Amino acid sequence: MPENKQKWYRLSGAEGDVVVSTRIRLARNLSGTPFPAGMTGRQKQEIIRTVDRALEESGEAGDFRQIEMGELPLRSALSLAERHLISPEFARVGDGGALLLNGDESAALMLNEEDHLRLQIMRPGLDLHGAFREADRLDTLLDNRLHFAFDSRLGYLTQCPTNLGTGMRASLMLHLPALQERGAIQQLAVTVSKLGLTIRGLYGEGSKPQGALYQLSNQVTLGISEQEAIDNLAGIAAQILREERTGREQWGQNPRFEDMVWRSLGLLRTARLLTGDEFMTLISNLRLGIAMGTLPDLSLETADALIGDVQPATLMSEGGRDMESAERDALRARIVRERLS
Amino acid sequence: MPENKQKWYRLSGAEGDVVVSTRIRLARNLSGTPFPAGMTGRQKQEIIRTVDRALEESGEAGDFRQIEMGELPLRSALSLAERHLISPEFARVGDGGALLLNGDESAALMLNEEDHLRLQIMRPGLDLHGAFREADRLDTLLDNRLHFAFDSRLGYLTQCPTNLGTGMRASLMLHLPALQERGAIQQLAVTVSKLGLTIRGLYGEGSKPQGALYQLSNQVTLGISEQEAIDNLAGIAAQILREERTGREQWGQNPRFEDMVWRSLGLLRTARLLTGDEFMTLISNLRLGIAMGTLPDLSLETADALIGDVQPATLMSEGGRDMESAERDALRARIVRERLS
Repeated sequence: MPENKQKWYRLSGAEGDVVVSTRIRLARNLSGTPFPAGMTGRQKQEIIRTVDRALEESGEAGDFRQIEMGELPLRSALSLAERHLISPEFARVGDGGALLLNGDESAALMLNEEDHLRLQIMRPGLDLHGAFREADRLDTLLDNRLHFAFDSRLGYLTQCPTNLGTGMRASLMLHLPALQERGAIQQLAVTVSKLGLTIRGLYGEGSKPQGALYQLSNQVTLGISEQEAIDNLAGIAAQILREERTGREQWGQNPRFEDMVWRSLGLLRTARLLTGDEFMTLISNLRLGIAMGTLPDLSLETADALIGDVQPATLMSEGGRDMESAERDALRARIVRERLS
Repeated sequence: MPENKQKWYRLSGAEGDVVVSTRIRLARNLSGTPFPAGMTGRQKQEIIRTVDRALEESGEAGDFRQIEMGELPLRSALSLAERHLISPEFARVGDGGALLLNGDESAALMLNEEDHLRLQIMRPGLDLHGAFREADRLDTLLDNRLHFAFDSRLGYLTQCPTNLGTGMRASLMLHLPALQERGAIQQLAVTVSKLGLTIRGLYGEGSKPQGALYQLSNQVTLGISEQEAIDNLAGIAAQILREERTGREQWGQNPRFEDMVWRSLGLLRTARLLTGDEFMTLISNLRLGIAMGTLPDLSLETADALIGDVQPATLMSEGGRDMESAERDALRARIVRERLS
């Protein structure tokens, strides 16, 4: 179990100036067993054993380590959600939930989340096709052994009807400071919803956007192939990238832009107390400045790794204990200073 | 004319954590000539020649260079006022005004300001007695030759009755961030006025305080000796210093104090645009942090020299031309970055 492998979220990928990461998630269920909401503990354990066996037989098990969600301190479970390795809901699933995570944490199988199995593939930057290929490969290996619940008319069966069909959610995490600065996100949300997509803040539905990070996902899973859904998402993302870059070019002409970027670096390098909100605002400016070439000595990888590393639960998980927010603010500031000095 | 001598305002002195500088100013007039407000240009030139001759005869002239105020660009005249080498009024006096300034700029003679002669001695830190001794020495040398207008009942005669008597204004420039932070300045102003003193913002009467810098001066010149006035000022200043230091100790206990100081340094080191107001706020925090030992790698001299060097007219005077405020803000930020890096 190569736990110390370089994690995928410490790398940056294609179109990294705007696209932080790509995620493909497939929802799958086993036939003849209730959905997790209606399962006993014994049935949940049976699902875990069955998936483990299938993974073993397919020759993939060696790369995965298994985490029993019920045995994980809540701060550590929430930390996994902060890194987008699991859903926020799964962080609180407790006994009966299990996570299979590969070495670079780019592949995760959530067992007994809303569905029996949620397979997730993550990639740095824009890599919808690569991520889908890997998801499809693992899905096929498992399906050969598990025979996922499938209806010839509806497609894959899922607990929530919004996932019926492909069971696929393809998402891009986008950094959109220029569109946010000009107040264009709301209009964008209206537009993409007409095209079968959603755009929302970093931590999913209902949360307010932090650090100008947005998640663009396909919404439609029924009556459309995986490839069509991905092509649709890729096409609209390309348009958003163009608009964001045009906005950045215009913004960059203003002398206040350079001032804002450098000040953000100055504060991040010196502050002794940083709330999560202030950090996200400053790191967003920093990331933008790096992408624009204003800060040539810093990399997108440094900024993106920091974003994951100083979220509240991750700070506590790394520290091995719960902390009051004032203590977290001091620890966050210390880590940020050390990384950016 | 040793123009390149280390200037007095680039040094720090006794009690430098709170007392930035000491100034003694004597107002003097020659008998038998109207006050400057009623003088012709020819009479003003005669005053300048007479004082020049007296300085020459007393053996002091070699250390002084003479500046004709009418020949100085306004930005350069205002720069002298920003450094407190002359009064703001004298910066706009124009033809007929002349300034005699010694090598380290610690002695200045303003000729044809409100009075025929205003003799000013400056010292870094707290040095009322030293500054007065030097003022008295020069005053005596000049008086031996010029025979200043003096009335045995009133003392030295001056244009404005508020200077009658000793003609002396002794001032301390104080850095009082802790007293300002706790809103104690207004009460302090009421208290000191009952004791024959005034306290006011950096650039004199009517201006709002910038950078928590205040000028504490004696108000009374009549019916009191120079020594009594200075002892009175020194005693009250000692009390203010105690209160300011107590306030700083208490403030320093708060974790937000260190955060504020370091953030101010971070912004000063990185900003690309700095307005004068923001600069003064940040440099005040920085000066406080240096005095408190929070920033061991920086000196009070560095902070105090910067305060003088990036005032608007000084920036333009050094640059040799007038500038719009946006250009000054960029130049100010560049100088500050270079000095503090």
